[in-house]
Amino acid sequence: MEQKLILITNDDGVSAQGISVLTRLMLTLGEVVVVAPDSARSGAAAAITCTQAVTLRRRADMEQDHLQVYACSGSPVDCVKIALEQVCPRHPDLIVSGINHGDNASCSIHYSGTMGAVIEGCMKGIPSIGYSLRTLKHKCDFTPYEEQVVRIASFVLQHGLSQDTCLNVNFPEVERLAGMRVCRMGRGRWVQEWISANNPRGMNAYWLTGRFLNLEPHSDDTDYWALDHGYGSITPIRLDMTDYNSFAHLVPLVV
Amino acid sequence: MEQKLILITNDDGVSAQGISVLTRLMLTLGEVVVVAPDSARSGAAAAITCTQAVTLRRRADMEQDHLQVYACSGSPVDCVKIALEQVCPRHPDLIVSGINHGDNASCSIHYSGTMGAVIEGCMKGIPSIGYSLRTLKHKCDFTPYEEQVVRIASFVLQHGLSQDTCLNVNFPEVERLAGMRVCRMGRGRWVQEWISANNPRGMNAYWLTGRFLNLEPHSDDTDYWALDHGYGSITPIRLDMTDYNSFAHLVPLVV
Repeated sequence: MEQKLILITNDDGVSAQGISVLTRLMLTLGEVVVVAPDSARSGAAAAITCTQAVTLRRRADMEQDHLQVYACSGSPVDCVKIALEQVCPRHPDLIVSGINHGDNASCSIHYSGTMGAVIEGCMKGIPSIGYSLRTLKHKCDFTPYEEQVVRIASFVLQHGLSQDTCLNVNFPEVERLAGMRVCRMGRGRWVQEWISANNPRGMNAYWLTGRFLNLEPHSDDTDYWALDHGYGSITPIRLDMTDYNSFAHLVPLVV
Repeated sequence: MEQKLILITNDDGVSAQGISVLTRLMLTLGEVVVVAPDSARSGAAAAITCTQAVTLRRRADMEQDHLQVYACSGSPVDCVKIALEQVCPRHPDLIVSGINHGDNASCSIHYSGTMGAVIEGCMKGIPSIGYSLRTLKHKCDFTPYEEQVVRIASFVLQHGLSQDTCLNVNFPEVERLAGMRVCRMGRGRWVQEWISANNPRGMNAYWLTGRFLNLEPHSDDTDYWALDHGYGSITPIRLDMTDYNSFAHLVPLVV
């Protein structure tokens, strides 16, 4: 029987620690193709590259049996698109993205390049999972999460996901997980987002920073609550962003 | 009584025709602040700028009574974030984005910088609307849509939108609209997305292009169907991307 084919990408770049851990773990489940940005693309969301050509470079130095690796000059979404059309020997059975250095819980999913790639994979009809770790470190210990990463991927390979649904998995930085929970995306927003950047030319220049404001800190069913309490969160994400509940409110606009 | 304050942005850049039309129309409803990218950012989705400082430059040459204009070096989402913290004299009553040159119906909402800005506005608790025109032209005739653009903005200023919901409005390129419909986001995806780019150095280089595949061409309740049939579409979009229907399927992953 043909091996499972797993496509891996991320938004921290092909050389990040998180993607090397994820690659090692996925090689226990099948054949792996990595197509990842050639450098960090944090905050890339589901951006695509419209104004320049995208290059693809084989990284034979990072390869081994059952593993092909490519660095791409584009965004995480570009990586998935180009992998599917130009690299993968057949339709992948699974797409995984990450493991991101930094969580993508609550509203951060909207900014996340990790999840942009996952949404793209889902749009192409392939079961797709994003993994993120709430950490600020470039080098961290992923061992407390490895078993769950493999377990979730195996489950999805075996049972699939609903049509047009993908997974957003987040881990807290802990020595031992309190457990794994299925969560909804919590309500929140970033505040106090800019600091003035000193510069020699008198321009108005600012660095994006900010503080996350949890708008429902006492709800125990959100991804953010799970992370705050030592649990990993598994949030099913749908492609369809329609708010069906608002249709009635908008009827006066129909002409 | 204080005038309504309307914040305008886009992803085609501060000099695009669509944003100048939108600005003229919004000035009939209140005071306007424009903070838009200094050049085109098509396909920027909800990307944010993490790796460089963002600059903000006043464009006094584009201003008039009740209108302030700024060009920003960042993404459409950066424009909204910086406008709210660094530019707007008070909390805006409405955020509008566009009018985009090119539609943002169906799955294209995920890639859209126009809608990235709208989602950001919504996240900040401000009623937000994205407008897009299905056209390939840089210069086009917006007159067939002007009445509806103002009508929808007036409605939202007066009645608001549900919490965590924003609007994605698309127009077909027609001499006369068949009408306006409230639609769901149709299912679709882009296919045949890459063409090889000739280059002198033998790299693997590709341009992103593609053809849209409507996965439900016969459903008459989608945004894509509306545009195909000469109608403008109004699609309510929710911030919460959780797929609640998948919770039961994922229960085996809880530990």
